[in-house]
Amino acid sequence: MIDVTLVGTGGMLPLPERWLTCMWLEYNGKACLTDCGEGTQIALRKHGLKLSRLDAVLITHFHADHVAGLAGLLLSLGNCGKTDSLKIYGGKGTAQIIKNLCCICPFLPFEIEIHELPFNEQSEFSWNGITIKSLPLKHSISCLGYSFTLERKPVFLPEKARMLGIDVKYWNRLHSGNSVEINGKTITPEMVTGEHRRPVKITYITDSLYFDKMAEFASDSNLLISEGMYGDDEYKEKMAEKGHMVFSQSAELAKKSGSELLWLTHYSPALTNPQEYSDMIKSIFPDTVISRDGECVTLK
Amino acid sequence: MIDVTLVGTGGMLPLPERWLTCMWLEYNGKACLTDCGEGTQIALRKHGLKLSRLDAVLITHFHADHVAGLAGLLLSLGNCGKTDSLKIYGGKGTAQIIKNLCCICPFLPFEIEIHELPFNEQSEFSWNGITIKSLPLKHSISCLGYSFTLERKPVFLPEKARMLGIDVKYWNRLHSGNSVEINGKTITPEMVTGEHRRPVKITYITDSLYFDKMAEFASDSNLLISEGMYGDDEYKEKMAEKGHMVFSQSAELAKKSGSELLWLTHYSPALTNPQEYSDMIKSIFPDTVISRDGECVTLK
Repeated sequence: MIDVTLVGTGGMLPLPERWLTCMWLEYNGKACLTDCGEGTQIALRKHGLKLSRLDAVLITHFHADHVAGLAGLLLSLGNCGKTDSLKIYGGKGTAQIIKNLCCICPFLPFEIEIHELPFNEQSEFSWNGITIKSLPLKHSISCLGYSFTLERKPVFLPEKARMLGIDVKYWNRLHSGNSVEINGKTITPEMVTGEHRRPVKITYITDSLYFDKMAEFASDSNLLISEGMYGDDEYKEKMAEKGHMVFSQSAELAKKSGSELLWLTHYSPALTNPQEYSDMIKSIFPDTVISRDGECVTLK
Repeated sequence: MIDVTLVGTGGMLPLPERWLTCMWLEYNGKACLTDCGEGTQIALRKHGLKLSRLDAVLITHFHADHVAGLAGLLLSLGNCGKTDSLKIYGGKGTAQIIKNLCCICPFLPFEIEIHELPFNEQSEFSWNGITIKSLPLKHSISCLGYSFTLERKPVFLPEKARMLGIDVKYWNRLHSGNSVEINGKTITPEMVTGEHRRPVKITYITDSLYFDKMAEFASDSNLLISEGMYGDDEYKEKMAEKGHMVFSQSAELAKKSGSELLWLTHYSPALTNPQEYSDMIKSIFPDTVISRDGECVTLK
């Protein structure tokens, strides 16, 4: 089970009634935060998310609305007793940005492991059993989109296991992909498992103008979180110039990528009522949520 | 008239229901902000304070709860069209801190004038007609307290002016402290003004343990804003070790300094209901306000 919370939905500026866009993803007792603008630590507390579980931070790019809350977050992690290391992933230059921002928190009780990813090509790494891929986006500065894929065990077939006379104590090992030796005979996982199950996939794309490669990157997502600065198509061209999308472009992306669910986010501060575009957007992609701060889902 | 707003009342961490301690002081169309922790720009917006009036920022010290909101604030100033320079005052090292924090906002449409003050002795400067003095405090790192003094014109005596046959068009010049020449005779301000009026003074002290010099520095304040991490005296010793005060020490400071009004602030996140100490504190200094976020007053 992966729990995903969209902590805030704002872009550019944190507002009294709208926190900045970032995603909290929790799996197997550990959490990963993607982006951390000013006020994110407050919003995490407000939504009841446990800082003590935070194990990794992913950064999309170095604009203030995505990173200005890092120093405060790190201090709060220290205050809540963190001693094991925190992993921070971001594009080239992340180490220098962290160093600069942390001039106001020189004494942290935990290590920071920084992993710099390329801004000019896709990359892939593993965190907490989840495969994370990055995609260079098209924004006013270098920026990365991320996908999170959790492979799932194939279906276990107890009747086959019983037929082969395999004791229950071996079932978990077999289901986890390991062969076992029973009475001199090798039993392989394939002998007791059935169809391959679709992995769980979440894709997070902000900030960027629309381009075709996104759909392939986000393909078959259970949840696509994607930016939309405005609901109205009249802003499409102006937003593209600034390296952003409007709602309809994210809805088209959700459709093309074969995603199951779209959460829109990263609204302009000038967009006071994004919900008014609900009908229009659902006519393009019905399973769209015009997200509010704290939107959450458990993906099984 | 000076308008003072205590934007937040928290210490250490910004909380969902308590912004970090900082003061907005507005006089003659210009505003000065003292301290800027994470979330301050959100709180300013929430309290309806106009960023466009911000002309100066004062920093007490370089702990995150007092400066981590600077980059976001500067970007928001740019977004609301600021083009004239912003003055930033703080202790030695301020320029480097600003440079580091601003790595995420390299293109601001206005100049920043940084004025570094000594951390080891008192200093004085003038902003917007107000005399600002700094006092080195005693905290875990170098820290400054500030006082803001607005001298007031003496009482103008129209009957004296009329007796001397001085035309009304000269009154303002005389009241503002300038002599005038009328029919070959020099008229000095003293000839048409009466008693000297007490200046308007605001003192802002956080973060520090208590020491005697504070009372002299804060003497005769119309408003003393002073820190108190806890309401209970049992924390007095522990807080002194960390360079902080408890409520009763600020109340004693208000009494000794001859201040008119005390606003307590900078509460520990663990202090969930500071108001419960109200009676106890008022028995030491009756004109104490256990401040809430957005406390404001107009000093005439």
